[in-house]
Amino acid sequence: MKRPALSMVVLVLAGSLTLAALALAQTDPLPSWNNGPAKKAIVEFVQATTTQGAPQFVPPAERIATFDQDGTLWVEHPMYSQVMYCLERVPAVVKAKPELAEVEPFKTVMSGNREAMAKLSKQDLEKILVATLTGMSTDEFRGQAKKWLDIARDPRWKKPFTELTYLPMQEVMKYMRANGYKTYIVTGGGQDFVRVYSEEVYGVPPEQVVGSAGGTKYGYDKSGKPFLTKEPRLILNDDKAGKPEGIHLMIGRRPRAAFGNSAGDKEMLEYTKAGDGARLAMLVLHDDGTREYAYGPAKGLRASKVGTFPQSLYDQAGKQGWVVISMKNDWKQIFSFDK
Amino acid sequence: MKRPALSMVVLVLAGSLTLAALALAQTDPLPSWNNGPAKKAIVEFVQATTTQGAPQFVPPAERIATFDQDGTLWVEHPMYSQVMYCLERVPAVVKAKPELAEVEPFKTVMSGNREAMAKLSKQDLEKILVATLTGMSTDEFRGQAKKWLDIARDPRWKKPFTELTYLPMQEVMKYMRANGYKTYIVTGGGQDFVRVYSEEVYGVPPEQVVGSAGGTKYGYDKSGKPFLTKEPRLILNDDKAGKPEGIHLMIGRRPRAAFGNSAGDKEMLEYTKAGDGARLAMLVLHDDGTREYAYGPAKGLRASKVGTFPQSLYDQAGKQGWVVISMKNDWKQIFSFDK
Repeated sequence: MKRPALSMVVLVLAGSLTLAALALAQTDPLPSWNNGPAKKAIVEFVQATTTQGAPQFVPPAERIATFDQDGTLWVEHPMYSQVMYCLERVPAVVKAKPELAEVEPFKTVMSGNREAMAKLSKQDLEKILVATLTGMSTDEFRGQAKKWLDIARDPRWKKPFTELTYLPMQEVMKYMRANGYKTYIVTGGGQDFVRVYSEEVYGVPPEQVVGSAGGTKYGYDKSGKPFLTKEPRLILNDDKAGKPEGIHLMIGRRPRAAFGNSAGDKEMLEYTKAGDGARLAMLVLHDDGTREYAYGPAKGLRASKVGTFPQSLYDQAGKQGWVVISMKNDWKQIFSFDK
Repeated sequence: MKRPALSMVVLVLAGSLTLAALALAQTDPLPSWNNGPAKKAIVEFVQATTTQGAPQFVPPAERIATFDQDGTLWVEHPMYSQVMYCLERVPAVVKAKPELAEVEPFKTVMSGNREAMAKLSKQDLEKILVATLTGMSTDEFRGQAKKWLDIARDPRWKKPFTELTYLPMQEVMKYMRANGYKTYIVTGGGQDFVRVYSEEVYGVPPEQVVGSAGGTKYGYDKSGKPFLTKEPRLILNDDKAGKPEGIHLMIGRRPRAAFGNSAGDKEMLEYTKAGDGARLAMLVLHDDGTREYAYGPAKGLRASKVGTFPQSLYDQAGKQGWVVISMKNDWKQIFSFDK
């Protein structure tokens, strides 16, 4: 056997060195995650679906990842931020229509009695939602919501709601986008509400927010300028079975990956997992009563009105290969402002 | 005054040469367009909105352009392709449900009598649409439509409908995408139908198709696998005022540019033009009876059931600064298969 020429040895060595340098340069895309099955599942899924020539490779156009918002991307306790918006918007509505001051449920909300407000029925809440989310132009609504988001503070952390996003999930979204995935928010919350801040807070443009949506009505102002009025007519109830239905309506493709945290996300995760090839379904489990909140199926966790995570969902995750994310064990850091 | 150093002269000369070389290297992005006001309007709009530092610069995230389909991107005569699909799908529907063979309007369609079919009422057509576009799973529908598109031929050119797209408009879409615009189809046609071929034919992915849309219903097959059934329940009638309403629902941003060809596009063009900063609104005028069809407002053009372009729309275009595209004068070549 002939000895390889020196120049060839040099080339091979140089090649190995370059690869080693590249490997070192690759920083951890998920630094807020502890090493464990959840982090491993995400990294393996992204690598398997984006490595050219790999058996599970997914063409860039088909890389769709959907994320529930409340409880999956940001805090949903003690109340959905949008419900808080609607309640805090009531005084402005009553100021514009003083006759509402003596009418329920507005009277209770105006009283400021938190105990009484907590007892409002679903029908009462619906009346408040209609009064605060419809009847104005889409531009007016945007302005009202923006203003509130700037000044409103979460009762526990005393920070803007938009800072209460989970750093590990922000990392997942960025990591997936860096690998050609289009990231969508698929929320039971109001599409128009989430679109006000989605780009700034999550890097998700309005056209990639799918949420519960009401109809609008086209019309003209006195100067003949056209505008859209928000109507109290529900087009899409983007929760439970409404999530895959909304995904079909707004995206038209089955997601490759989906992330949720409650019974409202069950159908979205099933639908995602039922597709061909590599699919990733993940559930955020709120089991960290110290750093965030603990609620859901684990023993001793307190029941909750929001973010329902029944034992049956936990069991289904096990059976269908969904990966449960333990906030307590999988997340090194929860908020960007954490030390 | 000191004479400039030789090195500076050389630098300035080299700079000019580089610019000249760049200008030469820039090939015409719209080769199928004749030089004229329409081509000029498109090029000036794109340059004004995408040149960093220009007063009308639009950030990439806000670059949204919407295109009507029938009559704007492809031929709509003698009948919308999707209506032809529905009529030609009737035999398969009757085969599956033989009792329909003796029921109107299916009996007339089965007779093959084109004169009688042309007289079907709007209500009859709706029955045919419901029977051929709903009741099956979204995957089944996709398969049926794909199969038809492969074999169906336009009666005049004897070519697949998907080849009857206007080359000049394909060039506009590519040119805008090359300059950071997201191109959307906003069609009165069925969203699910157009999404079957939009990516292959126009380079527009399903999630950038906004069209008339029915609801779907989530359910499970016998093996427990989830699927969506197309329901005869209209969620979005994406025509006339429904176009800006659909744009708000599905995109959540006002377009910067919009292209249409009929009264069904009036509100989309108004809505687009009413936004701040540079906006482009264009109308395709079918005035080429030789190479395509002639219909609409110009004297001597024959009336048409589809693609209604009343004189009032033509007048509005003039008043509101919309640019009318004359197929006859502005388009050097209409189809890619033209010599």
